[in-house]
Order: sequence, then C-alpha cells, then structure tokens
Amino acid sequence: MGAPDTMANARIALDAFGGDHCPSPEIEGALRAVRKGGIEVVLVGDERKLAAALDAQAPDWSSLPLRIHHAPDVITMEDSPSKAVRGKPDASMPQCFELVKKGEADAAMSAGNSGAMLACGLFKYRRIKGVDRPALVTSTPTRTGALTTFLDVGANVDCKPINLVQFAVLGAVYSASNFSKAKPKVALLSNGTEEGKGTELTRTCDQLLREHPSDAFEYLGYAEGADLLGGAVDVIVADGFSGNIALKVMEATGRALGGWLKDAIGSSTRAKLGALMMKPALMGLRSALDPDSYGAAPLLGVRGLAFICHGAASPNAIETSLAQVARSITKKLAPQLEAAVQHHKPLFDAAKAAESAS
Amino acid sequence: MGAPDTMANARIALDAFGGDHCPSPEIEGALRAVRKGGIEVVLVGDERKLAAALDAQAPDWSSLPLRIHHAPDVITMEDSPSKAVRGKPDASMPQCFELVKKGEADAAMSAGNSGAMLACGLFKYRRIKGVDRPALVTSTPTRTGALTTFLDVGANVDCKPINLVQFAVLGAVYSASNFSKAKPKVALLSNGTEEGKGTELTRTCDQLLREHPSDAFEYLGYAEGADLLGGAVDVIVADGFSGNIALKVMEATGRALGGWLKDAIGSSTRAKLGALMMKPALMGLRSALDPDSYGAAPLLGVRGLAFICHGAASPNAIETSLAQVARSITKKLAPQLEAAVQHHKPLFDAAKAAESAS
Repeated sequence: MGAPDTMANARIALDAFGGDHCPSPEIEGALRAVRKGGIEVVLVGDERKLAAALDAQAPDWSSLPLRIHHAPDVITMEDSPSKAVRGKPDASMPQCFELVKKGEADAAMSAGNSGAMLACGLFKYRRIKGVDRPALVTSTPTRTGALTTFLDVGANVDCKPINLVQFAVLGAVYSASNFSKAKPKVALLSNGTEEGKGTELTRTCDQLLREHPSDAFEYLGYAEGADLLGGAVDVIVADGFSGNIALKVMEATGRALGGWLKDAIGSSTRAKLGALMMKPALMGLRSALDPDSYGAAPLLGVRGLAFICHGAASPNAIETSLAQVARSITKKLAPQLEAAVQHHKPLFDAAKAAESAS
Repeated sequence: MGAPDTMANARIALDAFGGDHCPSPEIEGALRAVRKGGIEVVLVGDERKLAAALDAQAPDWSSLPLRIHHAPDVITMEDSPSKAVRGKPDASMPQCFELVKKGEADAAMSAGNSGAMLACGLFKYRRIKGVDRPALVTSTPTRTGALTTFLDVGANVDCKPINLVQFAVLGAVYSASNFSKAKPKVALLSNGTEEGKGTELTRTCDQLLREHPSDAFEYLGYAEGADLLGGAVDVIVADGFSGNIALKVMEATGRALGGWLKDAIGSSTRAKLGALMMKPALMGLRSALDPDSYGAAPLLGVRGLAFICHGAASPNAIETSLAQVARSITKKLAPQLEAAVQHHKPLFDAAKAAESAS
C-alpha cells in the first residue's frame, strides 16, 4: 500500500470500477494526478486486480501518495440506485462514501452509475440540513472560454419552488468556489426572457428570487437555451427534467455536427486535403469542446463531497476531475455550502410558504 | 391586382409584414413560388408599398397567380398576442386568418410574432372540437436525411396528460401527411429511456399511450435528446416548456459550433487555406443544416391551417415554406386532423379520467 506523502494533500476516494473502460482510465488518471502533487488518491475496488495493474503500469507506485482500498463488488450501469446503498454495500462506489464518512478521504468520485451516486449521496452522506433535494451539476463550455454552471441536470425531475431556489443558492456557491466568481450571475432557464414566459413554477421562483435579493449572487431573471453557451451567465438553474434534456440535446447536437462535418470532409479528395491542412485548428476546436476537459459533475446539497465523471471518461478526464475535486476540498466547498443554506433561510421559508399558498 | 390562373391552386394568405426584413423576402419568396406553379399567393399588407415593390421587382406580376390584400396595420414582435386579435384587427397577420375564414385562402402563413399567430389561430379559427390546446410544431434535421416532427415547441408550457396525448395524435397526422409516413413512430421526450425515468406527467402519458394503441401511429415509449437528431423516431412529443428549451439549445449549439469553427479557421493561414479547399463540402453541410430549408412550423389543433416561419426567413425559406403549406392544403391536412381527433376520443377520455383521478 502506498502511504500519503503529506497530510495536507486533498484525499480523494476514487471508484476504480465506475467507468465504461474501468479500471484503466481510473488508474492512469490517478497516477498522473498524484505525480503532479497535492493529491492523495485512494483507489477503491478489487485489491488484487488493482495491485496487479499498478505493478505493471507503475512499479514505483508504493512510493506515491496512492493506496488501494479493497472493495470486492461493483455497481453496474444496470443496477438500480438502491443496489448501491442496500444490495451491494461492499461495492467500490458505496465504499468511497464510507471512506469519506470514516474520515479517511475528503471526497468521493466515480465515473459510474449516476443514479447510484445520487442514492449514495442521499443515504450515506444525508442531505445538508435545510436542503430538500440535492442537485446534479455540470459545466457547459461557452464561447468566451468561461464555463457556465448548470443545474439540476437530472437528480430531480418533478420540482417545486423550494427546489429551484435552493439550486440557485447551491449553484452560486459552487460557481464562486470552483470558478472564483466573486458574485456569480444566476438565471432561471425558461422558454424565453420576455415577461409572461415560463411556467407556473419558474414564475413563482422568479418572483421569490427578485423579492429576496442575495448578497452571494446577482439574480438576472430568465435565461434561454442560448445562454448555456453564451458565457454571460455564470449559473443557470433548471428543474432536473428540462435541465437533463437541455444537456443531452447540447451533447447530441455537438456529436451530430461532428458527424456531419466528417461526412462533408469525406465527400471529396479536395475536402480531405483541406481538412488535413485545417487539422491543427480543428484539433484545438475539438479539445475546447471536449467534455473530458470540463471535469466532474458535483452532487450538491448533501453533507459531503461527491463528484461524477462521464462513463467514457479518459485518463485525461479522470486527471482533470481529480484536480477539480482537490480544488473543491482545498477551498472548503462543503462547509461553504452548509453556511450558505443557513444564510438563505428567509428565501427558502418564503418558497415553502409560496408552495403551501398555491 | 393579379388574378389566379387556376382555381385548383393551393391558395395561401401570406403576411407580407411578418419577418425581420419584411416585405422583401416575402415578396421575393412569393414570386418564386407562384412562378413554379400550383400555388396562388395573397400578399397581405400595405397595398401601396406592396404594389410599388412588385412593380419594381416583377413588372409582369399582374399576370401571375398573385394578388394583394390591403391591411394597413402591422403586428410587431413587441405586441402582446392579444393585440393581434383585438387591438389591431386590420393588421396583416390577423387579416390572413380572415381571408381563410372568408374562403378566399386555404391557409395563413407568417414569419412574424409566433405568440400572436397562436392567438390568431385560437381566436380566429377556434380549436378543433375535442382538442384542449393547440401545439406549435417544428421539424428537426437528422443524420439520415429524414426530418423529425417535434412538438410542442412553445405554445403550452404547463401541460396536462390530455395535452401530450393530443400532441401525439396531431403530430402523427402531420408526419403522415407532410413526410408521407404510413404509420409514424411516436415517442415522448424524457430524461432517459430507462424504466422509472420521466416526470409524473410523462409517466402518466406513457401509460395512456401503451394502454390505448392507435392504428394511426406506433408508440415507441420514451425518447432522449439525441433522438431529435437520430432519425429513428418520426414524431417526438414534449410539453411546450422543455420542447422550446430543447429546440433553442439545439439551434444555439449549432450556432456556437459554427462560430467556434470560424474561429478555428481564422486562427492560421494554413487553416484558412484548408477551409478554402473544403468550402464546397462545408457549403453542402451548411445547407443541410440550414433551418431555412425545413420550411414553416404548423400550428396544429385549430380549425384551419396556419404556418409560422423563422423571423429571419430568407426568400428561399419563404419559397420552401409556401411549397410545404401547399402540400398540406393538397393533402387535406385540416380535415385529416379533425377526423383523427374524433377517432382517438377513447384515448383522450382516458387522459381526462387519469387527470381527474390524480
């Protein structure tokens, strides 16, 4: 077992059997991250398999801030979320959360089943006192180069006003912490920015956020789909149904256009030659748009740090995500979220009152 | 005034003062469409302005199946929907609907304010008997080349089960008529296709559509964002809130990627040269993705034909849209929709029962 080289390192429990191609990208990404310093990784999963892979890939691994925590079982993509908390307690994913609970790690990270991650967050960490439901967060690339924090992207599909206003607060704290925004600009995703647009739900939340201005963020009103990529809004809040759809449409459109571009390039020799000349520029574009470079999606609203990576996460994505998780640990994201929830109690009380009045 | 050359022509009342650059694209598009034959256009708007523009652009216009219907007023993008039906009865947009009501045209078409078009449809045509709310429809490009019918994209944001199942029927009839699909494949937009996904609303509708199979369409279950561009589903049904967001995210992602590609091309001389060589292929791609080539969005569920074009519609888009509207007239879309609504009464009754039971 490797020993941590310093106790000041951010300690991350990484589910080594989460991603589609596990455990290779997890091991490779962890090795890269710990070699850069400042991070200690606990690889969670089958001890024999992990030790054999580490011995083969990095014979010096025992001198790195890296260790293995044995977990004999695996949560699959087909497992129901409850499997992760009840059916397979010894699986690598729930064991990551146990390590955090025992104080042996500061955050849990997995490229596995996101429903199971949500269940682990809810049942192992429990919710932050005052938070009704946690949210799943992602970051969208924008033309200005800044990333926009977008939540909820799928944890809660049937939302009430209290959920959306809490997502606004949680998202603002994350944006401030992760992207060093002093006072993030927050907006509600809607079907238009004009007066009278939105649903009953968004109109109620819009009014609540206007009537209870926060010192932690600036509320802008409604945002549209284009704002997810525009860079002018720091945090965009949606219910988990339309948020998840928006995220998947964005990813699918990107993939479809990439495919169409490939078809266009393959259509003639001249186009192929042209593409060859454009390759360095196109590769730059590809890396700017690569979801791998945007790191992991935090689960916000639970009493501990949990981050979810894309199932197809590459070693590079794992490395980037570990660095991002380490930043959240160092910046004390978890206590900041709890403090913000207490601080915004008047807004949340008003949201609950609005709900029972309607 | 020009006289129609044959009464068998599809007669379209075109709001000449709807689009962002009106009336040029409308006039140019109408001239192209009527010259191709089979279509008679009534250009609706300020008579003097229209006659002067026609005289300048097409001195022979009085021999074409084209005439002017005078409407002194204009509905702007800033006007509230009620302006179109009460405040400005002499505006070009509501006058198109009046022409259809009087039997002087078979369909109304405008590139103007879509909220006002919806209001005109509702208050001038009235709803089809048995339809609770109309839907706004669009067609999305897919990699297979087929277009997918997508509704509702913004007419109704707060939907009940009766609305979604009616959208499924209306969308299926439109897909069968417009794209000659014998038995269109219909799916509900959701946040995933796995069991347990979806909202209370989508789960109720999913059950209703499974329990009441239709002979007019095949119900597939849930679709995801990627299916909007995949080509395997003919009709995708959503509430107007998430549908509008999905549509705008798709358009915005396309624009953003186009912008990023331009930036990449501009980044070096080599890339610029490469792009020059790729130009014919890229232009093909651009036209395949051009929303202009997908025609107008019908408003389904009202007792008459109404089609809405993009505000920035080019002459080409107006021409394509007129041809599409003519096809709907020839194929008798309006009576087909009314018959389908009657035919699916058991499904609609079940949806209403499900709602009052919940």
